[in-house]
Amino acid sequence: MLGKYLNEVRSKTPLVHNITNYVTVNDVANALLACGGSPIMSDEPDDVADITSICGGLNINIGTLNKRSIEAMFVAGKKANELGHTVLLDPVGAGASALRTNTALELMQKVRLDVIRGNVSEIKTLALGSGTTKGVDADAADTVTEENLDLMVDFAKAFAKKTGAVIAITGAIDLVADGEKCFVIRNGRPEMSRITGTGCQLSSIATAYAVANPENKTEAVAASVCLMGLAGEIGYSYMQKGEGNSTYRNRIIDAIYNMDAETLSEGAKYEVR
Amino acid sequence: MLGKYLNEVRSKTPLVHNITNYVTVNDVANALLACGGSPIMSDEPDDVADITSICGGLNINIGTLNKRSIEAMFVAGKKANELGHTVLLDPVGAGASALRTNTALELMQKVRLDVIRGNVSEIKTLALGSGTTKGVDADAADTVTEENLDLMVDFAKAFAKKTGAVIAITGAIDLVADGEKCFVIRNGRPEMSRITGTGCQLSSIATAYAVANPENKTEAVAASVCLMGLAGEIGYSYMQKGEGNSTYRNRIIDAIYNMDAETLSEGAKYEVR
Amino acid sequence: MLGKYLNEVRSKTPLVHNITNYVTVNDVANALLACGGSPIMSDEPDDVADITSICGGLNINIGTLNKRSIEAMFVAGKKANELGHTVLLDPVGAGASALRTNTALELMQKVRLDVIRGNVSEIKTLALGSGTTKGVDADAADTVTEENLDLMVDFAKAFAKKTGAVIAITGAIDLVADGEKCFVIRNGRPEMSRITGTGCQLSSIATAYAVANPENKTEAVAASVCLMGLAGEIGYSYMQKGEGNSTYRNRIIDAIYNMDAETLSEGAKYEVR
Repeated sequence: MLGKYLNEVRSKTPLVHNITNYVTVNDVANALLACGGSPIMSDEPDDVADITSICGGLNINIGTLNKRSIEAMFVAGKKANELGHTVLLDPVGAGASALRTNTALELMQKVRLDVIRGNVSEIKTLALGSGTTKGVDADAADTVTEENLDLMVDFAKAFAKKTGAVIAITGAIDLVADGEKCFVIRNGRPEMSRITGTGCQLSSIATAYAVANPENKTEAVAASVCLMGLAGEIGYSYMQKGEGNSTYRNRIIDAIYNMDAETLSEGAKYEVR
Repeated sequence: MLGKYLNEVRSKTPLVHNITNYVTVNDVANALLACGGSPIMSDEPDDVADITSICGGLNINIGTLNKRSIEAMFVAGKKANELGHTVLLDPVGAGASALRTNTALELMQKVRLDVIRGNVSEIKTLALGSGTTKGVDADAADTVTEENLDLMVDFAKAFAKKTGAVIAITGAIDLVADGEKCFVIRNGRPEMSRITGTGCQLSSIATAYAVANPENKTEAVAASVCLMGLAGEIGYSYMQKGEGNSTYRNRIIDAIYNMDAETLSEGAKYEVR
Repeated sequence: MLGKYLNEVRSKTPLVHNITNYVTVNDVANALLACGGSPIMSDEPDDVADITSICGGLNINIGTLNKRSIEAMFVAGKKANELGHTVLLDPVGAGASALRTNTALELMQKVRLDVIRGNVSEIKTLALGSGTTKGVDADAADTVTEENLDLMVDFAKAFAKKTGAVIAITGAIDLVADGEKCFVIRNGRPEMSRITGTGCQLSSIATAYAVANPENKTEAVAASVCLMGLAGEIGYSYMQKGEGNSTYRNRIIDAIYNMDAETLSEGAKYEVR
């Protein structure tokens, strides 16, 4: 069923403007190409309005933010809003520093966001207005588990209703919620957390999926989350003796590249609550 | 025949200063090492004059330009010119934003360029003084085809004559021209366009080839273009089940690493017009 | 014997703040994850004090320094010193430009460093206060060899005594010295020099090792140097036909990921002088 959103991406080749961190940017670009989108990166305030204008979506990732790139995020966000483009925020490290928390909160106030994707610590920080995050990884105390799942589903829906954005909380169990419903997704493998940037890659892919499926953004973002997790499963199945996280990184992007609608529809493991 | 230019690179290990985008910079460094060159990156105005002074060539790539790196491009370009070093311009995204177009045009005015390498949309933008580019990829309408090949060969030669630079236009068919002759090159595979940064890698390799072959810059740049395309063919021949664009990226750089003069001479597919 | 330091890293998952160059940063993050640490990157002066505060160690790499990141290095270094965190300096390109040399020297004066890791040209530049480096690679004239080994061991010990830091000089033969003793390490393969960033990766791993083994910093840094070289040997043993430096890069990080204490203890080739 979710495979149809993949087909829309492959047929439309959405161009996504990424203001993103320099740690994972290369994998973000290759993952976006792998899923059927097209990437462009620019973080200079004098460049971003032009660049975002020729794109369909804007992916704002605050991973290695600086004063210049923060200014560019607001300039690009404003322009993307004017043009009705899809905008996603990935609040990397919100809760880990005042600058990251405040930048993410101010972006939420001044830019109309279609999607917010982060780990549970980051999303809680945005919902509560402050927080403590252990670096760029989620706090163990915050994890979505089978035990707190009902509570977390309610939290995700409430935050989606409040913000008007699709909320994607990713971890061992992934949640994708709008104000009415929540996809609970159980694709993926624990080894993915030993690779840098799978979350950043997902944010750019989710942007492409939302751009290509404007009438079904929640479903499209859920499809992208299933895609990433399923690619993690398929990529892992190709791992050979002696291979570790660096090769696994390549195999996941390779699996995104080779994914088709049927495989995604059959492999997606989710329920809607 | 072109293999002798490869041998010059491997024997001289040209040190290339790269002011380049942060998206593909790691692959640029590894590709440069693979071809037999040596990379150094610096984009701070207060650092670049010293750095470029110890190098043989300068590769200016405007892919994620900002005010600081733009200033560095002019400082480094001026110093490289003073020292008689080879300078290459890769006008990534020229035509996609005013800042990129204007920066590339101003670099052409103020820095003596030995080589300009881009896709056809970018090169047309430089030749016409303005343009529209779909992001960092060439506009489909602009593609060099068998049908418009004569026209494009003339265009490349005329632009080379006007600028005094070797002009490399890369795509399905690649052109490398000076004012007198044009190499028409048919190496490569379409799957290379699904990897980010093969163009950026080529620009750094072309710089190394031009540095190591100062008496035959046009032939050397043509050899580097054949090398990149042939590496794409050889890398593809090693692709296994389940592999996609991320592994293909590695296999191309691996093929550059393993290339020898004989393989390049035999595998290069070109004609001179 | 050195394997116990590996176990400490894996059990403590030290969080390391990296102010590092954008060329090799992705491999640095994946290498840090592979060894059992956890990476976070930030180079904005307004962000780094918060970020370094939640970490156990700070890895300062001046590879693509700029005015902003230099300011961030001093802010973060001061905060890390206040908190008693481990601080490592990787003086990439010291000797290649005045800015790099002077920044490294000023960092040595104003920040208390626990470890300094570089190639022999860079370390000599710091010891002498000036120097000439061929780009980011060591000058051939400077190499540590069996012939000058006694002299270089004395040099490393003397520089360690003078600075109070553990000194790691890496190359064909690696030296890790404090004021009293020097580990002479003979792991690794020459092909590692054809990959960008193995030194940068080692610096971040060495930081994690020092953080996790505060009572035995010299031994822990020596263990990390053996780990990197041994991973280079093991990764090479998995190389297949057609593979080159790009795949080798992945295989080395994979080998770090799969390393256990026993393998490290058995494979480490060193003597203490």
